[in-house]
Formats: sequence, structure tokens, C-alpha cells
Amino acid sequence: MKIISGGVTAARGFKAAGTHCGIRKNHSKKDLALILSACEASAAGVYTTNLVKGAPVQVTRAHIAADGKLRAIVCNSGNANTCCADGIIKAERMCSIVAHRTGVAPSDVAVASTGVIGQPLPIEPIEEAMEGLVGQLTSDGSSDAALAIMTTDTVKKEIAVEFTLGGKTCRMGGIAKGSGMIHPNMATMLVFITTDAAVPSETLQKLLSADVKDTFNMVSVDGDTSTSDMVIVMANGMAENGPLSAQDETELAAALRAVTGYLCKMIASDGEGATKLLECRVSGAFTDADARIAAKSVIGSSLLKAAMFGADANWGRVLCAVGYSGANVDVDKVDVSFESKAGSVEVCRMGRGIEFSEEIAKQVLSEKEIAIVIGLNSGEGCATAWGCDLTYDYVRINGDYRT
Amino acid sequence: MKIISGGVTAARGFKAAGTHCGIRKNHSKKDLALILSACEASAAGVYTTNLVKGAPVQVTRAHIAADGKLRAIVCNSGNANTCCADGIIKAERMCSIVAHRTGVAPSDVAVASTGVIGQPLPIEPIEEAMEGLVGQLTSDGSSDAALAIMTTDTVKKEIAVEFTLGGKTCRMGGIAKGSGMIHPNMATMLVFITTDAAVPSETLQKLLSADVKDTFNMVSVDGDTSTSDMVIVMANGMAENGPLSAQDETELAAALRAVTGYLCKMIASDGEGATKLLECRVSGAFTDADARIAAKSVIGSSLLKAAMFGADANWGRVLCAVGYSGANVDVDKVDVSFESKAGSVEVCRMGRGIEFSEEIAKQVLSEKEIAIVIGLNSGEGCATAWGCDLTYDYVRINGDYRT
Repeated sequence: MKIISGGVTAARGFKAAGTHCGIRKNHSKKDLALILSACEASAAGVYTTNLVKGAPVQVTRAHIAADGKLRAIVCNSGNANTCCADGIIKAERMCSIVAHRTGVAPSDVAVASTGVIGQPLPIEPIEEAMEGLVGQLTSDGSSDAALAIMTTDTVKKEIAVEFTLGGKTCRMGGIAKGSGMIHPNMATMLVFITTDAAVPSETLQKLLSADVKDTFNMVSVDGDTSTSDMVIVMANGMAENGPLSAQDETELAAALRAVTGYLCKMIASDGEGATKLLECRVSGAFTDADARIAAKSVIGSSLLKAAMFGADANWGRVLCAVGYSGANVDVDKVDVSFESKAGSVEVCRMGRGIEFSEEIAKQVLSEKEIAIVIGLNSGEGCATAWGCDLTYDYVRINGDYRT
Repeated sequence: MKIISGGVTAARGFKAAGTHCGIRKNHSKKDLALILSACEASAAGVYTTNLVKGAPVQVTRAHIAADGKLRAIVCNSGNANTCCADGIIKAERMCSIVAHRTGVAPSDVAVASTGVIGQPLPIEPIEEAMEGLVGQLTSDGSSDAALAIMTTDTVKKEIAVEFTLGGKTCRMGGIAKGSGMIHPNMATMLVFITTDAAVPSETLQKLLSADVKDTFNMVSVDGDTSTSDMVIVMANGMAENGPLSAQDETELAAALRAVTGYLCKMIASDGEGATKLLECRVSGAFTDADARIAAKSVIGSSLLKAAMFGADANWGRVLCAVGYSGANVDVDKVDVSFESKAGSVEVCRMGRGIEFSEEIAKQVLSEKEIAIVIGLNSGEGCATAWGCDLTYDYVRINGDYRT
């Protein structure tokens, strides 16, 4: 497997485009994206567990559940189409508009919306822009689509890989958006993944559901599980590989993990206001589940996140977050180190503070990517979670996002 | 029942004092407090549920559990005596030092420490200061004790009430500290309450445990459950009321609620960096438990807290937090209003946004005390939670607290 360029249009048969249609006032910010497969694709999706679900989440889930197939994904930014009386009608309308201009069935279109909650979605700009958007579809349009789905993101997020199934070269690529309201549970903000591998939709769903447990569900920016989270995978089979062997499935899972793992880190490091990517690696837990709970608790602690912003080796906050996480932990066996490319500093052994150089700790924590390494010394369970620091800019962005 | 002055020394037979002993470098900040009852008092306590528990929490719990009696409470700020190899020894030593200078039994002393986690507690300053501190004990020393237990608190927190049991006038008062790492579960940071009512310790424990469910456990500043939370009540019987009737218990519970309710709001409004007190009132839930879960989720949302800082009526974040709270909620029946002394503005009805004046909303949300009023229209369950906004100062305080 190797990393290649091309994002969601790296796989054969996928085209994409992004444009400014007018949902956002800022004309230089694209706000409408389209991804289209040349032929019918197997599809799988995972969605937010928030009881308040955006209308597009409900419509997309129904479209994929019907027959496990998709041809297109349409997505707007600037408005979440959530908590609106006419939300379902407008989400279905977005699919019909795509169908009208591309000839695919409305039920083969997935729809997503991200932005402010509770304001009516203006459908006219989407209707008026669709003919032009379809005309712009190209096999190197991934970047425009990735730009169009961004909200408070500061960098576009895309990745693609090449791998082999049954002697056939396959490609898989993805784009993502997500910066605030990021604490996914069953999925993350918006992630669209395409592959030209031939994969039955049941297999695709199985692989995706297994993957998100260790990837998107282990990311937290601010503890808020969005109403609009979704991850969609489309597999159109144009690589012409045969039925999947067990080894093929392993290869496919590895390709998926490469794509999702990369996008996870991109989302965490571009968290609203973030200056640092935090990676919490927990090992030695009684079970993997305990490790996941502890890692996610640490990455979600506002106090620790603020300490990391200040490059302050306040490891007591790590112990505190492990202690209230709900994980089964022997608190008298906890080891903690901080690591970065500037080095490593051990700060706690068997639940007790140890002497360390504040100067070295400051150097380690002044890097852009920091690992919080926790040894629980109780079993074989392990997990990794990703997050970011809590900064003045998070407050600035969210104190005045809507107006 | 009426509000009176005097804090923990309002009740007969209680003296208190606070001094600077040298745990903190800043000489103008008191860091050691003592509360002493003239006679043996019934005692009850509730403590943090964090698996990582400060040594003082463990020692105090053992002392109260032994016989339900206390004579004194000693508390230092500046060091949490938590995650230290010699923590238990030093916490017991603090009790012995008090015993030596006052003549009470070490097992009748409760001990508490608050401050940085994981640094060895210097015991010498406490030893050296104790004789002088005991000499300073007075029946109007509550204020000095309240000042001595503060860490990042910006205001001291004390309250007292007068009430009647069986024809006898009784008094109850409390002091508290708590500003960061506030998301209590079974207790809050440090709260010490005294009363001269005669109350068996079993009754005192029952009343306290019932009370914290709706008071301290409904406060959140930052979602971090401290390792050092405790609430201690001492009742020394000097009011000479007789055995408690059912009506007396109701009166006593009301006095306790008046003290704890006031201190809750004091803690929430003095949250680290806070500029606003938030009160989330949920009604119409299927059960009280659902109401509590929903209210606490809203008060804990970083996104909503930042929006309140910015006086932005971003009610979608209220719906979002209700939706991911885990409470059983019919999301299509949720009503939301914001209220303050500047007025009231309804923003969401039956799960859908409604037209409202942004100008009025801005006025309502620019006040210092804001209520987020949520109607779930499904049952009779209700609850109230208290929190504060998320500000630049929270990040500043916690980015550089330890160094």
C-alpha cells in the first residue's frame, strides 16, 4: 500500500466538484460539493448517535439502508438543515436536484449539511447552482469538494492510497471536515470515502463499523457530539478485482485504516482554535474497552487541554481524568510520560509523582504534536485517542460563531 | 428561617481561624484553616467518586466512618496532597498536629487539602503554625477560614441561616471553595458546614446525601471531577433541641438546602474565568433523573458555554447537548427560552427554531445571571443545574496554573 494524491477522485470512475452557490455570504468560500460515481457503487455509512439528528442524516441513512447502493454525494456547508420544520423535505429536495441534473435515481444520492442549527436551509441557491456544478465535475475535483464542505476548518482534509486486491490495483481516498462540535460517537462530522475496489455493501458496512471504533470515535475536540456526523464509503468496483478473499479483506481494512487514521489526525489537529495535536496512548489496561474509555477521558479534559496549550507538564490532571473516566483502573499502578519529537519525559510512576526536569518537560510540550503515554500495568488492553489543546481562539470562535 | 451572618461560626460552640503558614509563596494569601467545636459533634460527609482520591479524602472518610463524630476540621490550600507516596502519613500527621494543640482525639479531626496534585506536602509549616492558629480561634473567624481554603477562587464563599427545631433556635452555616476542576459527583470541592442543632449522625448523613444530589452534584465548571471533593457537616447539639420530629427533619433539610444552594451558586458563578452564572432549568422530563442528565449536559457543553460568553443565542447547541446527554427525550417536543433580569426570549418550540428578536436576545444574554429554560413536554420530571461561561480567562488560568 502506498499514499497517492487525488483524494476522493483518486479511485477510477469518481468525479467531484465544489462551488460557491450562495448559502454563505462570503463569495470566496465554496459551500456546495458533489461527488459522482460513473457506475453504481456499494455504500456503507455510520451516523451520529445524538438523539437530535439532522434531516440529511435521516435521509442518507434511509437511502443507503434501502439497497446498499449510491451514485452520488451532495453536501452543503453554512447551514446544518437541523431542527427545521421542513428539513426532511429540503434534504430530499437536494437529492432530487442532483438526480435531475445527473440522471441518477434520487434514492442513490447521499445528502449532508453542516453549519448553523435551526435556520431554514435556502434551497434556491442549490437549485440554481447544480447545473453548473455538474458541468464542473472532473477526475481531479477532490480538492474543490474538500474545500466546499469546510466550516471553521482551517485546512482541507484529503488523502488517498493505492493497494492490491487479487492482483488488481485498487485505490481508496477520502475527504473530511470537522473542527468544532467534535466528539463523535459512531461516526464523526463529515467524511466521504471512495474506492474502485469491488466490495459487497454488507462487507463494506462491516469494515467501516469496525474501523470507526478505533478511529473517528476516538477523536474529541470539545466533547460535543454533533447532530450531523456521518461517514460514507462508496465502492464502485471499477478496479475489477474478483470476490474478496480473507487476505483481500485484511488488505482492504488496512487501506481503510490508512485513510481514516490520517483524516482523524487531520481533524484533531485542526480542532477549533487548536495549536497542538494531542495523542493519548494507553496500554496495559485490563481490556481494550477500559483503555478506550481512559484515553478518551484524558483527551477530553478541559484542564489538561489548557495545560497542554501552556506547555505545562501538569500530569496530576492526567491522573485525575483517568480516575473519573469510568474505566476499571488500578490507580496505584499508573505510569505517565509526555513525548514529542523534542524528546520524552517521565512524570509519574505507579501513581506517584517523580522528579523530572521542568526545562526538558517545557521543551517536549512546546512541540506541535504531543503524545501523552499512559501505562496501566494491569493487562493487555490498549487504545489511542486524538484531540487538541484548549486555547483562547476556541473561545473566540465559539463565542461568536453564529452572528 | 432567615439568613444571618457568621458563616461556620454562626452556630454556637464553633470557632474558626485562618492563617498564612507558608505552603504558598505569596505571604498575603492565607493557606491554613481550622474549625473547632467546643464539644463533640455528629458528623456526615460525602466525597469524590474519582478513583484517584486525595489522601485527605481517604483519612477523613475513615475518621467519620469510625464513629460518626468530629471535633475539628483542618484544611490547607496550595497543595492537594494527592498522588504522593507519603500522602496518607502526612494527612494523618495533620490530624495529630491539631490534636496535640487542641486536646481532641486525632480520629475526631477531618482533614482536607486543595491545590496542585503530585507534589509532596510540606508538613513543617503546618506544624510550626498550628499553635498560633489555635490561639487565633474565635467565634467570628469564619471569614478567615473561608479565605484560607481558597485557590483560584476570586471571592470567599460563606453563608449562615437561623431556624427553629422543637421551639429552640438553631443556626447552620457553611464555607466553600471551588473554582476549577469542578464537576462534582457525590460531592463538590471543599464545603464545610456547621450547625448547633442536635442531630444523630445517621440522620445527618441521610439528609446530606439526599441534598447533594440536587445541589453540588448539579454544578459543573469544566467537566473535571476533582480528586479532592468533599462536603463535611458537623452538628454539635448546643442549641439543645430535643429528638427530631418529622417536621423538624423537614425544617433541617430546608436549612441545609438554603446553605448548600447558596454555596452552589457561589461556586458556579466564581468558576475559573467566569463572567456569567448559568442556571439550566429542565421541566417536563419523563423522570427527575432524565431532567438531571439533560440539565447537566447543557451546563457542561463547551460550545454553549462559549456562546453564553459571547451573548450569542445559539440555541442549536442547547438542543445538541440535550440530544447527546443520554437522557430519554422526545426531541420533537423540546421548548427552549433564555431568561435574565433583562427579560425573556423564546427561541425554540417543539424542537424547531422560531422567529425571535436578536436584539432582545442580546440584551437578555448580556446579564450576569442567565437561565436556560427547557421544557420537554413529556412528563413531570424536573431539575436545575448551575454552571458558568467559558472565557479567555479560563484558558489563561489553566494554561499556566502550576508554574
